[in-house]
Amino acid sequence: MEPKRIAFIGTGVMGASIVRHFLAAGHGVTVYTRTKSKADPLIGEGAVWAESPEEAAREAKVVMTMVGYPSDVEDVYFGDQGILSGIRPGSVVCDLTTSSPQLAVRIAEETEKLGCGSVDAPVSGGDVGARNGTLSIMCGGTEEAFREVEPLFGLIGSNVIHHGQAGSGQHVKMSNQIAIATNMIGVCEALAYAVKAGLNPERVLESIATGAAGSWSLSNLAPRMLKGDFAPGFYVKHFLKDLRIALDEAKVMELPLPGVELAEQMYSDLSARGFGDDGTQSLYKLYTQFS
Amino acid sequence: MEPKRIAFIGTGVMGASIVRHFLAAGHGVTVYTRTKSKADPLIGEGAVWAESPEEAAREAKVVMTMVGYPSDVEDVYFGDQGILSGIRPGSVVCDLTTSSPQLAVRIAEETEKLGCGSVDAPVSGGDVGARNGTLSIMCGGTEEAFREVEPLFGLIGSNVIHHGQAGSGQHVKMSNQIAIATNMIGVCEALAYAVKAGLNPERVLESIATGAAGSWSLSNLAPRMLKGDFAPGFYVKHFLKDLRIALDEAKVMELPLPGVELAEQMYSDLSARGFGDDGTQSLYKLYTQFS
Repeated sequence: MEPKRIAFIGTGVMGASIVRHFLAAGHGVTVYTRTKSKADPLIGEGAVWAESPEEAAREAKVVMTMVGYPSDVEDVYFGDQGILSGIRPGSVVCDLTTSSPQLAVRIAEETEKLGCGSVDAPVSGGDVGARNGTLSIMCGGTEEAFREVEPLFGLIGSNVIHHGQAGSGQHVKMSNQIAIATNMIGVCEALAYAVKAGLNPERVLESIATGAAGSWSLSNLAPRMLKGDFAPGFYVKHFLKDLRIALDEAKVMELPLPGVELAEQMYSDLSARGFGDDGTQSLYKLYTQFS
Repeated sequence: MEPKRIAFIGTGVMGASIVRHFLAAGHGVTVYTRTKSKADPLIGEGAVWAESPEEAAREAKVVMTMVGYPSDVEDVYFGDQGILSGIRPGSVVCDLTTSSPQLAVRIAEETEKLGCGSVDAPVSGGDVGARNGTLSIMCGGTEEAFREVEPLFGLIGSNVIHHGQAGSGQHVKMSNQIAIATNMIGVCEALAYAVKAGLNPERVLESIATGAAGSWSLSNLAPRMLKGDFAPGFYVKHFLKDLRIALDEAKVMELPLPGVELAEQMYSDLSARGFGDDGTQSLYKLYTQFS
């Protein structure tokens, strides 16, 4: 693959790992993020700093974004000094943020007017997946736009799938978050029960993680819960945002999701107690500290 | 390992697969099950029929049971013509049924009075795990009794762990069922959402089953849900029994389990609608047929 100039907006936990994969493959990466100091390590490794999303987009063939909330996505695309002010015809934008399917459709419509392609491409696999380049990337958009960015996605993901029109990637990600949310409750309850029953919970995990109760969360997050390691991974506040998008979409579809509703209530409770900046495994605290 | 005479009580979906592994390894197996016709294929393959649990136990070095409910376990151990009437000193009983931790303790106490060992040894891994000899087996009981049966468990399980005193195996299995129960809700909701959003659900599974949403149920049961294959695997009625044991135990521990409570309500609903003999993946019907 020919080296490309990539703009990357949002160099948080996941974004920084992704930028490193692009740099390692010889691509030029221009970065912008709200708090410049967070990008300093990347600049030390060869990334170029831009003063705004607009400036980052100006020279880029591909513009990727990975920010926090749908409102942040709106800002970096449509705001003053946003991507759409700087982007060149023929380039492609990819929003890797988990955001609303409707917003993905709007970005696709607006970029098309400027002669650009768009792929909504939320990811799954967490901090570990980003670091190892083994993310699942769920893509929506035109076939043409997808083909353009597929080789780049191959550098950061091991499971890159095009699901259909704009917004499809976000819908698949919602499906993903729905599965995670209710499972996280189960993982916490299984551990809390084991501890209360006087068992050795690490041994319990050896028994149950490889059978029918097995899951990514049980293998990867339950050990962190037991160690009292609640560092993010994936923020409670962002997960809560995802669950609310999923519930909004489900309401429009007239689909009741009692499991997600319970998860939303519990994560709201956790957030109200001041743990929004913890990792999602922090849900375990509701079972051990407050019950 | 020297060939042993094993008695096996309860030759349902899982039990039959387990007996076949023992026969294949050269052990003699005496079987008893409530409905004799269910044991006929095994008798054709070399198992010996007994007219009661008592008779089956009489010549056996190891007596294993895998029946439906705790009341069935009580019957086969303590009832008229039950195991305790026939068992010889020096033999070991193993209850593979998922049953109550308290009952496991009672079996251990009563068999000890007769000079016998006892291991509570519920399993996980479902019909597939039983067939492939890759079950997780969660064991409680004395070290001595466990060592006696460990080689036999090696024939049917790939993950055999001794967790402590009598009842510990059952507690670990409850932890396992708790993790499965809430996850099953998430799997159903993720699929129902994907279908309602107009996505291709098989492609969605390709995206999400290998990432942070991945689980045994998502990989193994979601495809069955999509095909409309609701055959057991694991019965709704038995799963419901497990969830009620877990909730009873949690109540004693003063541990609230809202996820399991939701699952118990939903599985009760499913059972009341006449689907108790379906496999647990049948929960998906609540999202597609009744909402």
